[in-house]
Amino acid sequence: MCRWLAYSGSPILLEELLYKPDHSLIDQSLHARLGVETTNGDGFGVGWYSTNTETPAVFRSIEPAWNDRNLRELAGHVESPLFLAHIRASTGTAVQQTNCHPFRYGCWLWVHNGLVHDFPRLKRDLALAVDESLYTYIEGSTDSELLFYLALTLGLEDDPPGAVEQMVGLVEEAGHHYGIEHPLQMTIATTDGNSVWAFRYSSEGRSRSLYYSADMRTIREMYPERPRLQEVSDETRIIVSEPLLDLAGAWNEVPESSYGLVREGEDELRPFRPR
Amino acid sequence: MCRWLAYSGSPILLEELLYKPDHSLIDQSLHARLGVETTNGDGFGVGWYSTNTETPAVFRSIEPAWNDRNLRELAGHVESPLFLAHIRASTGTAVQQTNCHPFRYGCWLWVHNGLVHDFPRLKRDLALAVDESLYTYIEGSTDSELLFYLALTLGLEDDPPGAVEQMVGLVEEAGHHYGIEHPLQMTIATTDGNSVWAFRYSSEGRSRSLYYSADMRTIREMYPERPRLQEVSDETRIIVSEPLLDLAGAWNEVPESSYGLVREGEDELRPFRPR
Amino acid sequence: MCRWLAYSGSPILLEELLYKPDHSLIDQSLHARLGVETTNGDGFGVGWYSTNTETPAVFRSIEPAWNDRNLRELAGHVESPLFLAHIRASTGTAVQQTNCHPFRYGCWLWVHNGLVHDFPRLKRDLALAVDESLYTYIEGSTDSELLFYLALTLGLEDDPPGAVEQMVGLVEEAGHHYGIEHPLQMTIATTDGNSVWAFRYSSEGRSRSLYYSADMRTIREMYPERPRLQEVSDETRIIVSEPLLDLAGAWNEVPESSYGLVREGEDELRPFRPR
Amino acid sequence: MCRWLAYSGSPILLEELLYKPDHSLIDQSLHARLGVETTNGDGFGVGWYSTNTETPAVFRSIEPAWNDRNLRELAGHVESPLFLAHIRASTGTAVQQTNCHPFRYGCWLWVHNGLVHDFPRLKRDLALAVDESLYTYIEGSTDSELLFYLALTLGLEDDPPGAVEQMVGLVEEAGHHYGIEHPLQMTIATTDGNSVWAFRYSSEGRSRSLYYSADMRTIREMYPERPRLQEVSDETRIIVSEPLLDLAGAWNEVPESSYGLVREGEDELRPFRPR
Repeated sequence: MCRWLAYSGSPILLEELLYKPDHSLIDQSLHARLGVETTNGDGFGVGWYSTNTETPAVFRSIEPAWNDRNLRELAGHVESPLFLAHIRASTGTAVQQTNCHPFRYGCWLWVHNGLVHDFPRLKRDLALAVDESLYTYIEGSTDSELLFYLALTLGLEDDPPGAVEQMVGLVEEAGHHYGIEHPLQMTIATTDGNSVWAFRYSSEGRSRSLYYSADMRTIREMYPERPRLQEVSDETRIIVSEPLLDLAGAWNEVPESSYGLVREGEDELRPFRPR
Repeated sequence: MCRWLAYSGSPILLEELLYKPDHSLIDQSLHARLGVETTNGDGFGVGWYSTNTETPAVFRSIEPAWNDRNLRELAGHVESPLFLAHIRASTGTAVQQTNCHPFRYGCWLWVHNGLVHDFPRLKRDLALAVDESLYTYIEGSTDSELLFYLALTLGLEDDPPGAVEQMVGLVEEAGHHYGIEHPLQMTIATTDGNSVWAFRYSSEGRSRSLYYSADMRTIREMYPERPRLQEVSDETRIIVSEPLLDLAGAWNEVPESSYGLVREGEDELRPFRPR
Repeated sequence: MCRWLAYSGSPILLEELLYKPDHSLIDQSLHARLGVETTNGDGFGVGWYSTNTETPAVFRSIEPAWNDRNLRELAGHVESPLFLAHIRASTGTAVQQTNCHPFRYGCWLWVHNGLVHDFPRLKRDLALAVDESLYTYIEGSTDSELLFYLALTLGLEDDPPGAVEQMVGLVEEAGHHYGIEHPLQMTIATTDGNSVWAFRYSSEGRSRSLYYSADMRTIREMYPERPRLQEVSDETRIIVSEPLLDLAGAWNEVPESSYGLVREGEDELRPFRPR
Repeated sequence: MCRWLAYSGSPILLEELLYKPDHSLIDQSLHARLGVETTNGDGFGVGWYSTNTETPAVFRSIEPAWNDRNLRELAGHVESPLFLAHIRASTGTAVQQTNCHPFRYGCWLWVHNGLVHDFPRLKRDLALAVDESLYTYIEGSTDSELLFYLALTLGLEDDPPGAVEQMVGLVEEAGHHYGIEHPLQMTIATTDGNSVWAFRYSSEGRSRSLYYSADMRTIREMYPERPRLQEVSDETRIIVSEPLLDLAGAWNEVPESSYGLVREGEDELRPFRPR
């Protein structure tokens, strides 16, 4: 369906993750291994935080990522300590910028891989559940954007895990109302520019893949011959739909029905329970 | 804001109206004279009926019309007895194909010039008024598309003038509820492939310009030296936001608050009253 | 690298070949089986002849074919007795309309799958060999377009097989001059609107795949249960980079180093010898 | 035809010049006052230098600048001490990224406003005059890009004014050979990331407009109430096709047939004489 990536840590050029690894996100746009489709060519987006403004920048395009020159340019010149990137494989909705991730609201970003099953039937009910003051900001036609606005409606800015749990509960209830057995499939990353929350969940308990990078100190000791790994801070974390390179011990799978929190200080990994 | 054109009559190549006249629709994309803006460069669209299928074809693009090569190619090779064309100047919503006109539902097409004032405030109420079974077909984020789905909700397929009058009534009521003095500004064309209805109306009684071509028999007698005018049938009609060429007596203005019906047999021009 | 298709015969909607077969050209844009790459997502094009004009129409886009709505619309509404379609996988040159096939000159169309090895080194010499009066029509940066203008320079309009043989000779000589062992890899289709010539050749004698449909009479007798096959004329032929559907006996491989001529009357299949 | 802007000085967000002034470059894309056309909607580009890499970044798009969201995002987040921006009005060549300015070679950037008269007739001769090793880097089909590669061929990297003077001499000679009275019309900016050279010249001696900002110290004294003007360094300079805002005494016209050099230390303004 889609692939995404979240980075938090020492400022790096975007290309370090988007292009340089053997199985970089751009490589995954043509040759995804763990996804439902091998091609993710229906647009892409990257959102990054910089030091000179609070609101993150968002660059989105409907071109396939693999040959997009503007993305190549940006990735080679923009440095950031925190960014999300996403490559899209449409599940039916139009290929247009407003359907590309990340979605942004204020200083928040949101990326999603997965889908709401039978979305056309649920769409109106879900849209009505969005807060009136937020409704007008919906620009695209995807399930992913609607999930974001539902989470915002339910308090994302104050309690991200709680809001996402309530959002999933709401979607599942709406789905069951229409007789949809397994309404939701998702991995999601969201951030306010300081912390990153990453969720892995599906109604059927067989969620799309999600990995996070192992502790940087351990990795450095295991691989003293890799100079780039020596430079980034201990706090640096990468979360990905599928590993960017084959490096034994470097990636841990996020367990079914759980979420992780990456921030300065101790990270967390907790169970996820829809409410 | 926008410019549009509707043609009904003897089959002609689209280029006869889109490119060849001195002040063709494509010329209007760069040099509109009667509009609020001289440039209409935020995408375009053309919908046409052909003999081999009932549903009209729709070609839409986010590029400016003036240099679009695919439009030039199509216009030089596609013949049609009934088509609508539209060039867009966005009033704020995203430049994307799903925001380009004409909008299509079944065998119906719809183009709009104008706007719903304070649309972001009204958007949710108007969206809720769309029939549940139709809601999921809304793909874009414009006021124009929403007006179409409201008209469909209110019976466009059975009684077009009645449905549009009710739609306008509904929008004005919603607008007044929010204290908007003049909620709606519009010229609209809609067609089922047989008849074309064209509406000119605005809440403030100062509507955007709209013209229709005079009786072809009269025109032929007035201008015996113009061979192309001799060829098209008596029934042929063109409706436009602004005249395609300066030809004295060739264009009549559609009066304020009225609508016209073009079809085989006698045409009609009637007052328009929101309900 | 790329995939292409040529059709000549009873007028049909483009969608009959572009979308409806199990392994249609659009399916091949995501799931090519016989090509070097499975994804052909760097643009597409279709050129078709119609009855109302001599010059063929060309519709080209940089979007991937699989989700392009305008292509879907056209394919469902445009009928033609002779058309070429092409999906592109760039071998390095920019993704832009002027690099999409088919290329057109006058009433001629041209599509190519393959490449000139080490093209950047040969490009200038090849460009200089193009006739002065033709040089200015080159709009893109691909090897494919340059091969077309070289063939035109060498008499394509008078003797297509002879011109293509000379063009290949010229490219191979230029390549050998730079020490390139196998300068050219190609399957090519070209047409003047009446006949279609299809070439399969490579300097190394291991050319990309190319197939043509078997005699329609034979196919009809073999498959009496397939109504669409009963309708098209005996003269109808399809030439494709890879078969559109698995139908035993329906496709013949074009032999190495040979070319076919499809036209009204007897078709031909002959050896191809660079001069 | 086109409009461009060059900035050199204290690092600023691109938006300070691209969006914020009353008559910013983006405003000029819809409402140019001094150009041949009021609309410059056939694509745009911006090239900027940053501290982390030597090669400048280039972002180019075929969309009109006025509604391009990615440009808006970049301009609001990217800071640079030296950048060129360009909005395009095509004089006939295709609207594609490789025809958008700035053009880049190594660490050099190049923007052009104007045209080579009768370019299709001169194109081949000019292309042949490009150094063999550079020819293959030509990606687009514009006169502007060809002028850049001719200047590079003639020593732009060692002696920019001399190389541009020779380039103009070469173009004029080629033009006169074909009986073209006034072969060239141009304002050009080029930079290596340290200095900016800006040229104003035309064969007929009636060149397109070009302005440079007056001495910053003088401006600050004249306008003590404008805080942003107080912040930028004394060395800061802006060169523009037309002034960004009406501020008496802030802009000087570059004289006919002359060029300016902006760099750390003393700037220069000298006569320009084709060789």
